Amino acid sequence: MSGRPWNKVVDSRDQQRRKKRQAVLEAGAFLFNENGFERTSLDDLARKLGVTKRTLYYYVQSKEEILMECVRQGMEFLETIIRSSEQEARAPLEQISLIITEYVRQVSTDFGAALVLTRENLLLDETRRNLRETKSRLDRLMRDAISQGIASGDIAPCDPKLVSAAIFGALNWVPYWNRKAEPVPAEEIARQFKQTFLHGLVHVHADGEQLPRTSSN
Amino acid sequence: MSGRPWNKVVDSRDQQRRKKRQAVLEAGAFLFNENGFERTSLDDLARKLGVTKRTLYYYVQSKEEILMECVRQGMEFLETIIRSSEQEARAPLEQISLIITEYVRQVSTDFGAALVLTRENLLLDETRRNLRETKSRLDRLMRDAISQGIASGDIAPCDPKLVSAAIFGALNWVPYWNRKAEPVPAEEIARQFKQTFLHGLVHVHADGEQLPRTSSN
Repeated sequence: MSGRPWNKVVDSRDQQRRKKRQAVLEAGAFLFNENGFERTSLDDLARKLGVTKRTLYYYVQSKEEILMECVRQGMEFLETIIRSSEQEARAPLEQISLIITEYVRQVSTDFGAALVLTRENLLLDETRRNLRETKSRLDRLMRDAISQGIASGDIAPCDPKLVSAAIFGALNWVPYWNRKAEPVPAEEIARQFKQTFLHGLVHVHADGEQLPRTSSN
Repeated sequence: MSGRPWNKVVDSRDQQRRKKRQAVLEAGAFLFNENGFERTSLDDLARKLGVTKRTLYYYVQSKEEILMECVRQGMEFLETIIRSSEQEARAPLEQISLIITEYVRQVSTDFGAALVLTRENLLLDETRRNLRETKSRLDRLMRDAISQGIASGDIAPCDPKLVSAAIFGALNWVPYWNRKAEPVPAEEIARQFKQTFLHGLVHVHADGEQLPRTSSN
């Protein structure tokens, strides 16, 4: 049935190398997140991957290189969120929901978690600058959405700077508590966080009053 | 007019030493928070305090001792919140508000910030265990308040574990963005965070409908 040419059936040598390098980077991000960058050695990484250190050197030169690449790929994720938000005009609450959903998804990956858990002083100056710039663009998108929502009356008056800090705090904290054998799925976290940030904890009833009632949960 | 005995007019030698030691600890916490524990030396600390290193050794033996003491005093703050919450029965929403207010106040001090910014692997096993235990007691208080609120109908059905994680994420993130020359006052942050977590972003009007309107802010 398959009409693929013979040489497309298996990966080319180049593709194989790229996939293996990516596996090395992901294992590196995982170990950095678990044990910290300083306490992770290339020996640990080789052991985790079940290869020799010599094999490892075929894909990466140093753990610094792995860290930079983790951060670069993590930043690419953030750039994707930013681009998607900039390209398509959305209602403020929809925009905020989208950032929450995507950001939770990203910090639930090893690269995304590395972006949050890596202390800035481990990064080269240029990488640090880029990362800060990217994070602050995302923060600006969030604040702008909040301000627009206030202007249109969809969002109750508030301080967009502080509310954005609260939202990103909640999001950035995810890798600190959700790195375990059976993590809470990103979708579940995103759904609850959206409910909490958009509607708050207080039970508002249809007539606007708060009446005691038995929870249906 | 003063009826104080002569020896109460000035601090005793012991009191003076205690106050000076406390100043050393606070300066230590400040530097750890600014530059990281590893990148802070006792020389930096002596320079910041304008004393010789020899003088410093009269109050503390090592930077490890300073870190332990910072964490111990930071934990005492948390214990105070826990005790106050356990002693007095409060309505769920009041309890949640109190934890937010007090926690923001604590992480806005140098010791409180150190508690959040210090990576756990720098701590001795026992200290780490105590800190985790204290944090998880506070988390349990928050979750219990949320569950009680759901049961009484004051709080809309939600997952207390995830909501508590969102709230503590927002709170723990404060020292990451609010360590600057002119920080946002703790009271202002607490007020906004309470509004956001209790009432959400969405503008709910008195009749329960969401109508576009011009912000009064």
